Amino acid sequence: MDTLTAIHTRRSIRRYIDQPVPDALVERILRAAMAAPSACNQQPWEFVVIDAPDLIQEIPRFNPAAAPLETAPLAIVVCGNLQRQVPLAEGFWVQDCSAAIQNLLLAAHACGLGAVWLGGYPLQSLVDMVQKLVGLPEDVIPLAVIAVGYPSETKEAEDRFKPARIHHNRWSEGTLGKELESGKISDCS
Amino acid sequence: MDTLTAIHTRRSIRRYIDQPVPDALVERILRAAMAAPSACNQQPWEFVVIDAPDLIQEIPRFNPAAAPLETAPLAIVVCGNLQRQVPLAEGFWVQDCSAAIQNLLLAAHACGLGAVWLGGYPLQSLVDMVQKLVGLPEDVIPLAVIAVGYPSETKEAEDRFKPARIHHNRWSEGTLGKELESGKISDCS
Repeated sequence: MDTLTAIHTRRSIRRYIDQPVPDALVERILRAAMAAPSACNQQPWEFVVIDAPDLIQEIPRFNPAAAPLETAPLAIVVCGNLQRQVPLAEGFWVQDCSAAIQNLLLAAHACGLGAVWLGGYPLQSLVDMVQKLVGLPEDVIPLAVIAVGYPSETKEAEDRFKPARIHHNRWSEGTLGKELESGKISDCS
Repeated sequence: MDTLTAIHTRRSIRRYIDQPVPDALVERILRAAMAAPSACNQQPWEFVVIDAPDLIQEIPRFNPAAAPLETAPLAIVVCGNLQRQVPLAEGFWVQDCSAAIQNLLLAAHACGLGAVWLGGYPLQSLVDMVQKLVGLPEDVIPLAVIAVGYPSETKEAEDRFKPARIHHNRWSEGTLGKELESGKISDCS
């Protein structure tokens, strides 16, 4: 799938069919996640792949917003390992892991899977519960849980482009959006 | 460009040729950024596109790690607007904006541009200086500056896959990595 197509047609998929995700695809999306950039290239991420249904089903019990896990064959806990940061990169693990998640979501979509990013951190109660559930060491912080499976819902692409969010040189100098919108483009040329 | 190819061949490009980035491409990469998922779909991002050379050159003066801007025709400040968060989505803007940045970097690469993510937040001194430079309101926090241009360096893809980072069900149950690595795959099938 073309990169820009994947970016623009990826949606949060919250219902899945009853079919496991093959190991080869699990590897594929985790490889994509680990290809993300990170501060000082420290790659502070760790991934807990949960396929045990009883463990997966625990999560929506303590986090109602994680309801998509009720039909998901797979949950991936994306964590930041605070031990993997050099002093210069300290505090950047949230951004690094978020970039990894976005890669994972795009790769999943490109491979015909559906996925949704279920936020946890910085809500301490959710962090604590996930940490306990999968037995994470104290220095490994679960950022989010990604539900993954073959989609049982389809969603149209959503146009989120908002020209007013684009400012030119200085905040007060107004937006670039109007100029840009005049020349809608459909490819990279 | 194929999605997985873009994800795996994207590298941080830090030197650019002396050629402006056409408006159509600026729009293209910002459209990609705004297609990212966000907590409660709040889309808390704002973008300041800097093409004034004197403004761009100010940044590496106060942040030596932003040296790639010395040859960049374009700098995009990616910000979180704290006014754009509903209570439920509070605290998630860093993750939302990071997902947007990753989309932007992939789109830039797919369109033949080079880019690099120059971290700022949570380093308060860098946040303050960028905020002052482009005149951001107090509630608009610059997360990072992205240098963008046509590359004057080429870099091979880097394999960052680390099977030991993949844990199975519970942290203590060991990694999935070994099993996965046995079946290296090259496509989505």
